[in-house]
Amino acid sequence: MGRSVEISIAQAAALLREQDNILILCHKSPDGDTLGSGFALLHGLLSLGKQAKVECSDPIPERFAYLFPERALEFEPKYVVAVDVADTNLLGDKLSVWSEKVDLCIDHHGSNRRYADKLLLEGDSAAACEVVYLLLQELGVVITPKIADCIYTGIATDTGCFRYSNTSIRTHRMAAELMERGCRFQKINQWMFETVRPSRLAVEREALATLEYAFSGRCALITLDRAMIEKNGASDDELDGISAIPRQIQGVQVGVTMKQVKDRSGYKISMRTTEEADASAICARLGGGGHARAAGCMIPGNAEQAKAAILKAVAEQFQEEPWTES
Amino acid sequence: MGRSVEISIAQAAALLREQDNILILCHKSPDGDTLGSGFALLHGLLSLGKQAKVECSDPIPERFAYLFPERALEFEPKYVVAVDVADTNLLGDKLSVWSEKVDLCIDHHGSNRRYADKLLLEGDSAAACEVVYLLLQELGVVITPKIADCIYTGIATDTGCFRYSNTSIRTHRMAAELMERGCRFQKINQWMFETVRPSRLAVEREALATLEYAFSGRCALITLDRAMIEKNGASDDELDGISAIPRQIQGVQVGVTMKQVKDRSGYKISMRTTEEADASAICARLGGGGHARAAGCMIPGNAEQAKAAILKAVAEQFQEEPWTES
Repeated sequence: MGRSVEISIAQAAALLREQDNILILCHKSPDGDTLGSGFALLHGLLSLGKQAKVECSDPIPERFAYLFPERALEFEPKYVVAVDVADTNLLGDKLSVWSEKVDLCIDHHGSNRRYADKLLLEGDSAAACEVVYLLLQELGVVITPKIADCIYTGIATDTGCFRYSNTSIRTHRMAAELMERGCRFQKINQWMFETVRPSRLAVEREALATLEYAFSGRCALITLDRAMIEKNGASDDELDGISAIPRQIQGVQVGVTMKQVKDRSGYKISMRTTEEADASAICARLGGGGHARAAGCMIPGNAEQAKAAILKAVAEQFQEEPWTES
Repeated sequence: MGRSVEISIAQAAALLREQDNILILCHKSPDGDTLGSGFALLHGLLSLGKQAKVECSDPIPERFAYLFPERALEFEPKYVVAVDVADTNLLGDKLSVWSEKVDLCIDHHGSNRRYADKLLLEGDSAAACEVVYLLLQELGVVITPKIADCIYTGIATDTGCFRYSNTSIRTHRMAAELMERGCRFQKINQWMFETVRPSRLAVEREALATLEYAFSGRCALITLDRAMIEKNGASDDELDGISAIPRQIQGVQVGVTMKQVKDRSGYKISMRTTEEADASAICARLGGGGHARAAGCMIPGNAEQAKAAILKAVAEQFQEEPWTES
């Protein structure tokens, strides 16, 4: 770690202009930003007459098929670019062979581990796609509707469709430009945000049945048992969405989701809080950690034991930080 | 109907400059756009040294409290402005006394019934708030963080946070400007989109338990019985959100929500479809109507009877428009 030379957008563009046979790496469990970045860069490089291809350790979900090129190229890579990959362990098994051989990393995570030879990092960008967009413009790439679709996808997914605090003034201006370039924002938002799998709904229904309140509604708790998860075939991605529910309930300051681990030896706790409670302090009492608004920990034992441990830690937090009814 | 004189933003600004003691009317069952428009206009007029107040036939939900002025004024109205009110029947009972006395209507509904003396209409605006924003700028009002909050609220709520097809390039540029003016977009989005009432979750859980699929998953159907609705105390607003679920399921082309009417004599059907099916044609077979993507009808009888009638109409539609597995 720490060997990267940080470079500017102009320098990254100059480097890419010199290169060909470019392999673009996305992170494992691919999301809209790593894929949007990867395919936007791919389409841009192809338009400059270069050979390029995108790879990912995990299968790319079908809902992202609109990002793909008409046909994939096969060639021996001469230059390797990682997009939205903060650390080599995020490359996943299949791509781990490239861990020591990444020539350029394009990223927006301040926590980037600086594993690549050159690093183009904009820590205050809402999405890696914002950085790729600026880079493509610097390269003189014509922003086609297809490229606009890719960039918009990363921006929309990483900002929760312009909801989260990482959304900047520039983010909205870029969205306006991408719409001018013909991005299919409505279709993309429908595919990304308004399509749920039957398995997700089935788990959600069972999860809601486990919903419990404590501390006069200031704490809400959902329990996901292995049987429930496995019976319905829900993915981790889908379960993450469910973890967001307890904190969203009106009046809830501490939202807890307890997910039983695969060997059934205990529960993985995901906690989200409003400004009135410190998730990281509560989880630290249970040997875990994280951020003030989102943290986690592991509790061995059965559901009753895990629940008792959490409620005790929450009680201590509520006592320390007196809370007034608003 | 039809007596309105359509005026420009400049003309509307000139009119308002001349007026004082201005009553601003919002539509009943108030949403973010009518309230955002009303309070933005209120704050703008107050900043120009005028007296103004906002009224609504229904109570304003607590979650909109951040739009309010520090204190409300009381005065005898001399000039009446309606915002985001397409027809006088939307004024509601309390405000119906003003039906014939609206001096100016500011709206973005192409279907506006032209009941007001003067009409400032921008049919291609995503929200009435976009029109109010342009009007306030024309009036030379300084866009304070509070006004920016109001305008952003209407834009975000009417576009589903920039998701829907009514979102324009200008919408994003306005959002960028409002963020420059200090609007609390993250808090607003949290209040508007990420806060659910326990009653909504309770109904959702029971509604998901009624979820049925037909036609190999191309049709999904949810049933809301009176007992379920009344036991959980869910509002119509909350039930509307649930109506959106069936169509969002992957593979579903026809999403149906059957809501039992208050006297239990039948079911109100809300249907949403993807491009593969015509909701308005299906509902027309059952004596209803609407748009191609969203329509409705009433079916007398019990749940089984209503379901049978709908599935028959859907079957006829599917037969007429052959559908290929993609």
